[in-house]
Amino acid sequence: MAENTEFRIEHDTMGEVRVPADALYRAQTQRAVQNFPISGKTLESAHIAALARVKKAAAQANLELDVLDRDRAEAIRNAADEVISHEYDAHFPIDVFQTGSGTSSNMNTNEVLATLATRALESQGIEVHPNDHVNASQSSNDVFPTSVHVAVTGALINDLKPALDQLATALEKKAEEFKDVVKSGRTHLMDATPVTLGQEFSGYAAQIRYGIERIDAALPRVAEVPLGGTAVGTGINTPDGFSARVIELLAEETGLPLTEARNHFEAQANRDGLVEASGQLRTIAYSLMKMCNDIRWMGSGPNTGLGELRIPDLQPGSSIMPGKVNPVICEAVIQVAAQVIGNDTAVALSSTNGAFELNVGIPVMAANLLESIRLLSNSTQVMAEKMINGLEANEERARFLAEASPSTVTPMNKLIGYEAAAKIAKHAVAHKTTVRDAVVELGYVERGEVTEEQLDEALDVTKMLGNN
Amino acid sequence: MAENTEFRIEHDTMGEVRVPADALYRAQTQRAVQNFPISGKTLESAHIAALARVKKAAAQANLELDVLDRDRAEAIRNAADEVISHEYDAHFPIDVFQTGSGTSSNMNTNEVLATLATRALESQGIEVHPNDHVNASQSSNDVFPTSVHVAVTGALINDLKPALDQLATALEKKAEEFKDVVKSGRTHLMDATPVTLGQEFSGYAAQIRYGIERIDAALPRVAEVPLGGTAVGTGINTPDGFSARVIELLAEETGLPLTEARNHFEAQANRDGLVEASGQLRTIAYSLMKMCNDIRWMGSGPNTGLGELRIPDLQPGSSIMPGKVNPVICEAVIQVAAQVIGNDTAVALSSTNGAFELNVGIPVMAANLLESIRLLSNSTQVMAEKMINGLEANEERARFLAEASPSTVTPMNKLIGYEAAAKIAKHAVAHKTTVRDAVVELGYVERGEVTEEQLDEALDVTKMLGNN
Amino acid sequence: MAENTEFRIEHDTMGEVRVPADALYRAQTQRAVQNFPISGKTLESAHIAALARVKKAAAQANLELDVLDRDRAEAIRNAADEVISHEYDAHFPIDVFQTGSGTSSNMNTNEVLATLATRALESQGIEVHPNDHVNASQSSNDVFPTSVHVAVTGALINDLKPALDQLATALEKKAEEFKDVVKSGRTHLMDATPVTLGQEFSGYAAQIRYGIERIDAALPRVAEVPLGGTAVGTGINTPDGFSARVIELLAEETGLPLTEARNHFEAQANRDGLVEASGQLRTIAYSLMKMCNDIRWMGSGPNTGLGELRIPDLQPGSSIMPGKVNPVICEAVIQVAAQVIGNDTAVALSSTNGAFELNVGIPVMAANLLESIRLLSNSTQVMAEKMINGLEANEERARFLAEASPSTVTPMNKLIGYEAAAKIAKHAVAHKTTVRDAVVELGYVERGEVTEEQLDEALDVTKMLGNN
Amino acid sequence: MAENTEFRIEHDTMGEVRVPADALYRAQTQRAVQNFPISGKTLESAHIAALARVKKAAAQANLELDVLDRDRAEAIRNAADEVISHEYDAHFPIDVFQTGSGTSSNMNTNEVLATLATRALESQGIEVHPNDHVNASQSSNDVFPTSVHVAVTGALINDLKPALDQLATALEKKAEEFKDVVKSGRTHLMDATPVTLGQEFSGYAAQIRYGIERIDAALPRVAEVPLGGTAVGTGINTPDGFSARVIELLAEETGLPLTEARNHFEAQANRDGLVEASGQLRTIAYSLMKMCNDIRWMGSGPNTGLGELRIPDLQPGSSIMPGKVNPVICEAVIQVAAQVIGNDTAVALSSTNGAFELNVGIPVMAANLLESIRLLSNSTQVMAEKMINGLEANEERARFLAEASPSTVTPMNKLIGYEAAAKIAKHAVAHKTTVRDAVVELGYVERGEVTEEQLDEALDVTKMLGNN
Repeated sequence: MAENTEFRIEHDTMGEVRVPADALYRAQTQRAVQNFPISGKTLESAHIAALARVKKAAAQANLELDVLDRDRAEAIRNAADEVISHEYDAHFPIDVFQTGSGTSSNMNTNEVLATLATRALESQGIEVHPNDHVNASQSSNDVFPTSVHVAVTGALINDLKPALDQLATALEKKAEEFKDVVKSGRTHLMDATPVTLGQEFSGYAAQIRYGIERIDAALPRVAEVPLGGTAVGTGINTPDGFSARVIELLAEETGLPLTEARNHFEAQANRDGLVEASGQLRTIAYSLMKMCNDIRWMGSGPNTGLGELRIPDLQPGSSIMPGKVNPVICEAVIQVAAQVIGNDTAVALSSTNGAFELNVGIPVMAANLLESIRLLSNSTQVMAEKMINGLEANEERARFLAEASPSTVTPMNKLIGYEAAAKIAKHAVAHKTTVRDAVVELGYVERGEVTEEQLDEALDVTKMLGNN
Repeated sequence: MAENTEFRIEHDTMGEVRVPADALYRAQTQRAVQNFPISGKTLESAHIAALARVKKAAAQANLELDVLDRDRAEAIRNAADEVISHEYDAHFPIDVFQTGSGTSSNMNTNEVLATLATRALESQGIEVHPNDHVNASQSSNDVFPTSVHVAVTGALINDLKPALDQLATALEKKAEEFKDVVKSGRTHLMDATPVTLGQEFSGYAAQIRYGIERIDAALPRVAEVPLGGTAVGTGINTPDGFSARVIELLAEETGLPLTEARNHFEAQANRDGLVEASGQLRTIAYSLMKMCNDIRWMGSGPNTGLGELRIPDLQPGSSIMPGKVNPVICEAVIQVAAQVIGNDTAVALSSTNGAFELNVGIPVMAANLLESIRLLSNSTQVMAEKMINGLEANEERARFLAEASPSTVTPMNKLIGYEAAAKIAKHAVAHKTTVRDAVVELGYVERGEVTEEQLDEALDVTKMLGNN
Repeated sequence: MAENTEFRIEHDTMGEVRVPADALYRAQTQRAVQNFPISGKTLESAHIAALARVKKAAAQANLELDVLDRDRAEAIRNAADEVISHEYDAHFPIDVFQTGSGTSSNMNTNEVLATLATRALESQGIEVHPNDHVNASQSSNDVFPTSVHVAVTGALINDLKPALDQLATALEKKAEEFKDVVKSGRTHLMDATPVTLGQEFSGYAAQIRYGIERIDAALPRVAEVPLGGTAVGTGINTPDGFSARVIELLAEETGLPLTEARNHFEAQANRDGLVEASGQLRTIAYSLMKMCNDIRWMGSGPNTGLGELRIPDLQPGSSIMPGKVNPVICEAVIQVAAQVIGNDTAVALSSTNGAFELNVGIPVMAANLLESIRLLSNSTQVMAEKMINGLEANEERARFLAEASPSTVTPMNKLIGYEAAAKIAKHAVAHKTTVRDAVVELGYVERGEVTEEQLDEALDVTKMLGNN
Repeated sequence: MAENTEFRIEHDTMGEVRVPADALYRAQTQRAVQNFPISGKTLESAHIAALARVKKAAAQANLELDVLDRDRAEAIRNAADEVISHEYDAHFPIDVFQTGSGTSSNMNTNEVLATLATRALESQGIEVHPNDHVNASQSSNDVFPTSVHVAVTGALINDLKPALDQLATALEKKAEEFKDVVKSGRTHLMDATPVTLGQEFSGYAAQIRYGIERIDAALPRVAEVPLGGTAVGTGINTPDGFSARVIELLAEETGLPLTEARNHFEAQANRDGLVEASGQLRTIAYSLMKMCNDIRWMGSGPNTGLGELRIPDLQPGSSIMPGKVNPVICEAVIQVAAQVIGNDTAVALSSTNGAFELNVGIPVMAANLLESIRLLSNSTQVMAEKMINGLEANEERARFLAEASPSTVTPMNKLIGYEAAAKIAKHAVAHKTTVRDAVVELGYVERGEVTEEQLDEALDVTKMLGNN
């Protein structure tokens, strides 16, 4: 919202406040703006929409249960639709670092909707009050956390799961494309028995598919909302049946699998479902770190590294070293992972900010969770489109290294035992020769302990790849 | 194992090593003992048993698939049973801070079982080799992580879930016992509308029940094991059908819902299932913190605090302040929570210690997870038995405070609107009077805005408790 | 920068790129904008200024050491001054989540300065090249981390230390104001021997003063910069003496105690100084949490809590409970603390994103550290001005509670021993009487074990406050 | 202590308790043993000694200030000496997870010393009481945290700093040994301009030297102790001058730079100095991770990795892959780092367990900090002795890779500009040729843009190593 020097006077239970003349909000919002000049960061846009959706459902339930008259209820619902469309985000200027219940943002929503609804009913001379009408049958203590669960559930289902699915699909395509690229396995970073590059990518894809399962595993508790508990969980000042009905309406409105809190006292006092969801995001972040680290190592070089993969060139890599190309998407994603893991610390720690009937760290939990979901959604999409899809195997080098690994001696265990096989491997490394030559040099063939045929069979790297 | 000065000479592929004369282990274990004099902490006992269970299942599968002869297979199985019974824990002396694959501990298991099995077959002159027989069809890289998942799954199902159930049950009993104890709700630590102490305890019980759900939600991925993947996931050096069969046998042996990795490359390279499980333990830890904080605040006093609960006296509370009693179990549990949260950091961070086909932070992940489960199991049991069961409500004080809360004005919103109600509440606080008197003093009754009957109805705290 | 549909064509070593017509930046910036559509968050403004300051110092050093001609050097210096004034922040559109070295942002700076300098020299027909001139004797790998250390050092010294000093001063004033307000000490949340409210506030002030010491303790390593190391620490492509001179100039330009890296290989490869600084911010965050928790507990009530402090009313506290006032600044600061602690996790974890000669998590480390400093600076200032300065003691209640504490028996230890004193305290609690009456009731005076005078002396709470 | 079935009856202010017949401790210790069957982990041995040292100093100060008679004071001092010698560690059986003030362990110390001192004075018929004599002028609330600061300060100065110095020295020797080993620098894991292996090791050594500085930077606040504050910081029940004198004696006794808390209320209520110290250990842990990751990557291979370093063979690396050797010390140290970072989370989070005059997370803070110091001390010593000292460079391969890096084109920037140099580098990579050949092939020499002599000069890797 543009700066402006025009003001009007608003009042609340504490007295008068000067508010920008064209602001849809009123006194309580303005007080909060003045009280919290801290970060300059306001609620995420998806969070504002979720607040408005709660208000819309509540207006309808209040109408059905005779708490609100039809005119006011419909005016509030229409006003909510406008806010949901992100048209009025600029009228939600309160800092994330505010009162820990989000009361200020709940009142901001109440005030904006009251102003819009009052304007709509102006000709009829009907006033809509922020508390008595827009907030009827509600409290910040159930509305605000509900809005967070709604926004988070929506972002997980509508943004993150599709992004992860896109990434998993991209990885699966590469698994297929690379299914015959034999390369050296590496354990402890040291030469191991061979795998295919396709097997490795199938593993990455599986990690992402498991990430989707992890989200699904947490959803039942994330999608459970405290709405209807009002101030402390008892549902004071709600009509009978409000809680069930308003959540039913909210689920319809959002298309999300929202459910009513099985225990309203648990639901009011704790945000454990958010902590759990954040923990799952953290696990996904660590999965991405592993995968991006592997990929950039396989792409390392071009001449002094492993050089098994070619990562797409997206931009010049150095301001001083000409022609350098770097795995920049890997780095961006790893940095996203670090941020998500940091955000997770902030979310989980905010649990300690709960006492008795209310957690008072909710705005920060919301901001961090929603940012994490956004970062993961955007970065995994970028990762799929700009990097994974463009990866190319350096097949020749991969095969060369696979055959150079002294661990290709492993199938010999079954022919001559682990200890003899170890001697061969050590001989090959010490004399910079192949495992096959080492077997011969050490006399195993001559002494008839293995035949040439057995050797051919045992040392064929393509026979070491299993059915997995 | 007692110190001893007698030694025997053992050898491995690197040469000779002096081993304590009465040790069941051999050269590789001894090398690891010498290489890692770091923490003095060895594998958890449940972990050693899990390793032996894997070996027992593998011996049987190897027998069935003609990799091992019957004598050796049975000797290994019998030896494994002895280790499972914890008889030989002292023969597992290797530090937790060892090679990151747990190869040293896998070889320790192989060596102890080889020694025991060889002894059992001594009369027949049959040798059992640690690698060629005990470790047949296996690699540290699938055995060791499998043992961790087995131990963790077992501890979650057999130790933690029952302990949490016991705690939830204790809390539910108190919820019933306290169901008529009216007290002031508190939000932002400030006086709110009333709740019952029973409602609060029902919320605590629900938190613990959700903790059990959280464990269940993670189990499918914790109970999935990499066994059969051997060195790098390809199953090199295993016979056809080994993977499925050995896991079937292991599930039977342990009675746990173990399943084969759906993708052996994911399973070999990552321990994300452990990270996820650790995240759930962290959420449970934060739940316990909240609950214990509430309880100790309600028990604060006896004279200068809230004084709503009496926490059992378990020990003198101060070396200088005579007669002091402190909420020591709350403090112990909160400290457990801090440790579990710290352990979780160590577990999750160890994800970054994976590259390509192997994570090399597994022993530390195992040690931290198993410790966390043990700490949570023991402390929640102590909490139930020594504290929750003995809690007593200070009913009179609780009721007194409930009625003193100016937020009891809240039902008046519906009669006279939020703004008028706010004036009453402020008047009551400023004049140190009751809400009822404030209503009267401000003339609402006199002016006929509310009747005495309405007031009685509206300000009855027992009517503010909802049906929730 | 306003959206625009006009473009011009720029090129770099990878080819042509369409750039917004009025952008000061060129091809590489544009590529990075397209590669990283991730968070929507760009570099902090102070960070952009720091980059420009580095470029300004480098231009001067390059002039003095004959790497640049005077015209270009001065044009670059003048252009840098414009960027330092924040005039062109909109021309730095690259996402924080970019290449981990910050190469994109270094090139963005090079391009903007090259464009501005070229324009200034247009009449002379002199071109200024982003790499060959603006970046002369530099690499992203020394410039970008240097810019972070400069921005962080500046923010610590110029923003955070003064804010903490203001808060400590406010607390010290309250310590003086409250020096005679006797209250009950509380340990384990339980009634302890008395203290004054002033003593408590002196402790809070000391915590903040120690926070300032913590910053000072880290500064030597935060203010040490890698500039001059160029690509990998060897200083390739710099003239002799460049490193020392450019840092001298940078220190002058910024007025900060910047020093040259004592070991350029350590300085190039690691950002440990930032991790250390972040750790100190975390400690300060935990200090603030403790203090704000104490204050909101002392302000809890008005009728059902401790009620020892009155916290200024800043806004209505509840959308449903009329007249409620909450400790909202405490809550905002505690949420800031949680965020700082989360940011610290992200900063420290980014250490693992370093390999060989470069850490590639620098932009995220910078964003989190600079945000943390900003949040702490702003919130502690708000805390001092809007809360601490307005705190009032409820002296009467505090004194009443002090005298009610059964731990006031403690001085009796010296007269009758700890065990007898414990009996008295227990008697007082059980019989809801004062300690004095308990002494009498239990016959100590009658039996002559203590005299009335001794009792008066021993039980006077004002004599229990020490000289500390 | 051996299990035993013989008991004696002890009593405390809560009544009678059965205690093992041969236990030196008494009733309160026994209650705590029964109350906290949680982890099976008791206080670290160094911590028990520190408690005894505090008691020894207190006895002397009490003697000098006429609180104790000479017989008792000397008997307590002598008893303390026996405990300090670790002779009676088995008589300290209380779990770490106990009352958060450590009151149980303070009383355990009081009881053991009272028993030993009473025995020593048996012939004189003098009783020494745990509270009235051993604990005279003290409280758990100042003694226990003081003991932690003493133990931590001692472990930092006497164990960790020397271990880090040993490691730094080992690294410095290698820096010297490797000073002429030219190798490719790597940034973003990609080929960069050359460095020497010695330069890299000088950087590692510097990191460790900075770690020592970090410890020194924290010491002033770690070495500051609350002793003398007794119950709540006021020093209730201490004689004038006690605080200063007892700390002076304690500093003498321990040889540590201990100082009295500048503000006894800060010192009593907070353990921020421990959080700060833990943050420094965390930074050191991350330094070790980076270094060990570099080293194991440089040692990767033998045939499919970087192969620039030979890491000493300490044990067979695989139970299935014969002859495999792994960087096991690197892995152990990285796991130690993960544990230290996890422990740090537990320590810092325990800050939230403080309220008013006491933190009640102290035993857990102590256990984690002391474990971290022990792990770091032992593992860095192992690292120096078993790994760093035995590292050998693969000089030939390192040089080969250095010269293969396309970034060796970098000095050409100054001759022909960044853009032309980029063309050369790209040409060299695309055509798998050397940079020199690419220059020639692209006609720069032919066209006279560079001379052969300039090329020789510019492309000599030994000229790219700087003076740093």
